[in-house]
Amino acid sequence: MVDKAAIENAFVKFIKDYQDINGSDLFELDRAPTPLEFLQTCVLRNRPCLIRNAFNHWPARKTWTDEYLIRAMNGQNITVAVTPNGYADAVTLNPTTNKEYFVLPHEEQMTMDAFLKSLHASRCPDRDGALPPAYYISLQNGSLPLEYSQIAKDVDAEIPWCSEALQASPDAINFWFGNDRSITSLHKDPYENLYAVVRGSKTFILFPPSEFACMYESVYPAAQYQPNDQHGFDIVPQPNIKVPWIPVNPLQPDLKRYPRFKHAKPIIATVNEGEMLYLPALWFHQVLQQGEQGTIAVNYWYDMKMDTMLYPSIGLFRRLISNLVDAQPDLDLPDSDTDESPDRPS
Amino acid sequence: MVDKAAIENAFVKFIKDYQDINGSDLFELDRAPTPLEFLQTCVLRNRPCLIRNAFNHWPARKTWTDEYLIRAMNGQNITVAVTPNGYADAVTLNPTTNKEYFVLPHEEQMTMDAFLKSLHASRCPDRDGALPPAYYISLQNGSLPLEYSQIAKDVDAEIPWCSEALQASPDAINFWFGNDRSITSLHKDPYENLYAVVRGSKTFILFPPSEFACMYESVYPAAQYQPNDQHGFDIVPQPNIKVPWIPVNPLQPDLKRYPRFKHAKPIIATVNEGEMLYLPALWFHQVLQQGEQGTIAVNYWYDMKMDTMLYPSIGLFRRLISNLVDAQPDLDLPDSDTDESPDRPS
Repeated sequence: MVDKAAIENAFVKFIKDYQDINGSDLFELDRAPTPLEFLQTCVLRNRPCLIRNAFNHWPARKTWTDEYLIRAMNGQNITVAVTPNGYADAVTLNPTTNKEYFVLPHEEQMTMDAFLKSLHASRCPDRDGALPPAYYISLQNGSLPLEYSQIAKDVDAEIPWCSEALQASPDAINFWFGNDRSITSLHKDPYENLYAVVRGSKTFILFPPSEFACMYESVYPAAQYQPNDQHGFDIVPQPNIKVPWIPVNPLQPDLKRYPRFKHAKPIIATVNEGEMLYLPALWFHQVLQQGEQGTIAVNYWYDMKMDTMLYPSIGLFRRLISNLVDAQPDLDLPDSDTDESPDRPS
Repeated sequence: MVDKAAIENAFVKFIKDYQDINGSDLFELDRAPTPLEFLQTCVLRNRPCLIRNAFNHWPARKTWTDEYLIRAMNGQNITVAVTPNGYADAVTLNPTTNKEYFVLPHEEQMTMDAFLKSLHASRCPDRDGALPPAYYISLQNGSLPLEYSQIAKDVDAEIPWCSEALQASPDAINFWFGNDRSITSLHKDPYENLYAVVRGSKTFILFPPSEFACMYESVYPAAQYQPNDQHGFDIVPQPNIKVPWIPVNPLQPDLKRYPRFKHAKPIIATVNEGEMLYLPALWFHQVLQQGEQGTIAVNYWYDMKMDTMLYPSIGLFRRLISNLVDAQPDLDLPDSDTDESPDRPS
């Protein structure tokens, strides 16, 4: 028999080895890399990188004002995530039952005009100091060509140096529009991600895959926000759906419940208007956004290469830490992953 | 407490995940890759690749006959590894003490002429059917420029597409000359390795780093072969030196002692005259050679990139499997590795 603490210690040494070798600096490039440079600097190292001057030529850089977007979208309905607190797809305590759920946002169909009114109003508290719900365009089903075909021409259909380096076209391109009310909870994706900020700025709190053991990935019953008659939201369980997710909030980590999180060392990447972040596959990330007029971004998901040791390593970490040490059930996920699925179970 | 078998099972699933994704095919290229292709096909995947027509232009392809080498080396002494059984740097049972040692070869200084006579004679049994000692030029200290400067001009000083891709020059270039009497025991190196066969052929039995748990890396006291008065060799312990090494011989695995080895799936790469093998960093490899007139090879070691998860992962595997499951002492190696050191402790 082996003491659980000995397994945890082995992971802590591993986490520190990786940190000692790599530090927590963010790589930066002042121009778009060549395909060779992109592999050398970014993909091969599986390290994040801030890239400047990579999409100055996009028409969107100039045209994507509120007025233009309303006009271009021409009254078409779009899908908007609505939450009481800005956390969509996050582990949330249901105060009624005192039980934690993975809570999906309420989704509303509305016009761009209506969205913009709700978005800007969401920053203004009412007379009692209470904030309205948070509105966030954050559908990740390749939303740009699906729901925003009218404005898709304002950005490139792929990132040429990335496509050439990875020998692939993007698997999905998503359109994001929100403000500082919305926060994306810590998670990871099995994609090489290029994240271009067109308006405002975003802050990414990034942790390498080696810090899996700090994240306390656990299995939660799924639920969804549903507006109620008291202008609030109920958390409505979705029967028979279980989701593995990360409960730690890096902004306020509960180190009593999640003591291994103290070994995690974030890289903080603030991505300003006109800058692009390379967010490597399987890096944990929490995302905040700034900008009074709202933050717009377009991200390109390229399928990650599964044929390295990185992908199966996450399965190993899960079996050793989540299942054996933390006694979490073994979901035996078909893709050995825990991602925000492009097809949400909503 | 966690059952040791549960930890082993987690590793077996990891090994199978990697095998399911990658299979055991050897990549092949019919020409030298560009730097971009080399990263895409070889380094990024950390998968071996056979490369043809990559060094047809080397003068060595035509000039390196026995006669030329004797003439060019001009009577200068070279270092030759001499062993009774062809296994240098291998875990070996000392029959006198019934104890296993990591046994270094006896090293002799001799001329190329003397080496060639000994090499070719080593294939001929005496009247009792006993074979003479095995002779192998296998010093890995960057031997080509050090001991073979007279013939170093017959090969390239670096592999240009590899140097450009890895943004580095080779850390060491080694000259190898042996025959089917000599076998390199299973081990790994922290180098990206390009292995060019100039004469004869070599067979590499390759296992990915994910199969660490199959290898039963253990710590052995060091010893060295020393010729004795009975025309044989004694195994002479080297006090206070301990070496972590792999005891399994893939040609005759003892599955009773090393049951996890049954999960290992080799890639077999036969590299013929004029072909080059990309042997990725940290892959386990055993090496055999064929060719009646002896096998000559030149290999280029490029420092591996330490700043990926691969390198610290080996440390994690060692702590979990070698230390916790197999109760091997934690040597806390400064470089977390188990390599055939370029500077042998001999």
